[in-house]
Amino acid sequence: MKRKSDEAHPVLDSDVEAGIRDSFEHQQFMKEIGAEIDLLGPGKASIALPYRPSLGQQFGNLHAGVTTAIADTACGYAAFTLLRAPIVSVEFKVNLLAPARGERFVACAEVVKSGRSLAICRADVWAWEGEFRNLIAIMQATMMPLKK
Amino acid sequence: MKRKSDEAHPVLDSDVEAGIRDSFEHQQFMKEIGAEIDLLGPGKASIALPYRPSLGQQFGNLHAGVTTAIADTACGYAAFTLLRAPIVSVEFKVNLLAPARGERFVACAEVVKSGRSLAICRADVWAWEGEFRNLIAIMQATMMPLKK
Amino acid sequence: MKRKSDEAHPVLDSDVEAGIRDSFEHQQFMKEIGAEIDLLGPGKASIALPYRPSLGQQFGNLHAGVTTAIADTACGYAAFTLLRAPIVSVEFKVNLLAPARGERFVACAEVVKSGRSLAICRADVWAWEGEFRNLIAIMQATMMPLKK
Amino acid sequence: MKRKSDEAHPVLDSDVEAGIRDSFEHQQFMKEIGAEIDLLGPGKASIALPYRPSLGQQFGNLHAGVTTAIADTACGYAAFTLLRAPIVSVEFKVNLLAPARGERFVACAEVVKSGRSLAICRADVWAWEGEFRNLIAIMQATMMPLKK
Repeated sequence: MKRKSDEAHPVLDSDVEAGIRDSFEHQQFMKEIGAEIDLLGPGKASIALPYRPSLGQQFGNLHAGVTTAIADTACGYAAFTLLRAPIVSVEFKVNLLAPARGERFVACAEVVKSGRSLAICRADVWAWEGEFRNLIAIMQATMMPLKK
Repeated sequence: MKRKSDEAHPVLDSDVEAGIRDSFEHQQFMKEIGAEIDLLGPGKASIALPYRPSLGQQFGNLHAGVTTAIADTACGYAAFTLLRAPIVSVEFKVNLLAPARGERFVACAEVVKSGRSLAICRADVWAWEGEFRNLIAIMQATMMPLKK
Repeated sequence: MKRKSDEAHPVLDSDVEAGIRDSFEHQQFMKEIGAEIDLLGPGKASIALPYRPSLGQQFGNLHAGVTTAIADTACGYAAFTLLRAPIVSVEFKVNLLAPARGERFVACAEVVKSGRSLAICRADVWAWEGEFRNLIAIMQATMMPLKK
Repeated sequence: MKRKSDEAHPVLDSDVEAGIRDSFEHQQFMKEIGAEIDLLGPGKASIALPYRPSLGQQFGNLHAGVTTAIADTACGYAAFTLLRAPIVSVEFKVNLLAPARGERFVACAEVVKSGRSLAICRADVWAWEGEFRNLIAIMQATMMPLKK
């Protein structure tokens, strides 16, 4: 039975969620760096990543390519929740706002507009240190469902 | 004495080259993925990366975050050659042109405009398979010298 | 005396507002197309533009360059409110989400992060038709205070 | 009969060129600002614009929205030459490299990659003053053929 509260906090169709979790399992690079799916919801996805020194650039901060990797992955799965199909990235643009220092990084993506052939997303990447978080990067991206 | 041939094929100042190679050595993530400096010249830098399955996304192609990582790193060192200072990335935009399949990937960056406070760069990322190469991504980026 | 309601809806310092309105008066192109300042607040600015056929592209929709012009201008003044200095645009990226059809367009910009040397902004551009509005474009931009 | 020289300097199919010129005639905003098609070739298009004070921002330089308008239009027609269909802009990113001062501005666009559903382009915008030119902006853009 569907309750009022389910409408306020809509949940993802279980088939779609299973498709995303299966896809994520096949992303070798996400495994390699230790990334995990944090949250999934209609039009939304978050990817979390604990810091490791092996992911750093020359000053020990998270490499911008890794920041991009989790933001791009989050945008792709946010698009997947609405387009219900495997997604490829068309393009993205990232602004790096602050040094990427923290114990844990979370990229939170949201679909801004979903059409038949493209989904446009925004993502925020947060660095967490204990209870505090700092916005370190923002992404604006175009995602495309794979032609079947 | 400056010779004609130096003008035709300008070489990098040895101090600048040493600074870049030292910086690259400290990039743990570049080591982790097996990336190498391919070429350096005034206003130019290339980063090469042999393919490994651990760098793949769900279809086994190079993850867009890794493609971005080598393009961003190449842009940073291209800017370093002219600004003669450690560089941080302000922002970049990547278009993914083709599936990132190949034995080896090379990101070739060039400074388009270098000012006092910012350097604007473009990069092309090529996938090599034997003797053939395919353009898989292009980047347009803003780099900033670190305030000393 | 400062009231509670002022804190909830913070107002702009009158000097900053005067500086922005004076700057806008000198923007010949904004006058030419009939754009107006819609709203100003700390870290926020909106620019409104009534539709005219002379601003259209080949299908009569607002030209993407005009959409960009009001979004860029809104980002610049949003940055001005915090950096308290004339602003130049470093770069911007625009996704066009829907055909730009409407009676009136409003670009709403917000500063995401303001530093000493750069301000990073996001803007949404809405097309209004009577009481209805449609999101037609989003921008992510880098703004820089003019060196004095 | 096709001659060697045609291959070296390929010319545009006359139907495609007519389609582009007809489309450009319907762009009210291009007429309004005084822009003209400068050059067309396979995968290439240039748009020229004489300076007028009415196109300026607060310092009298060409407004970034106008710079974007001619770069975007050039990218659209460069894509049209290869996709042979009316084009809409999906997204673009512009870096502003220098103050846009000059007698005349020319946006030169080139298709980097053309697929079935998207064309990726780059454009350079030059400011001309007598015989001298200065690179004032670069664009990286995604164009899409209109579904028929």
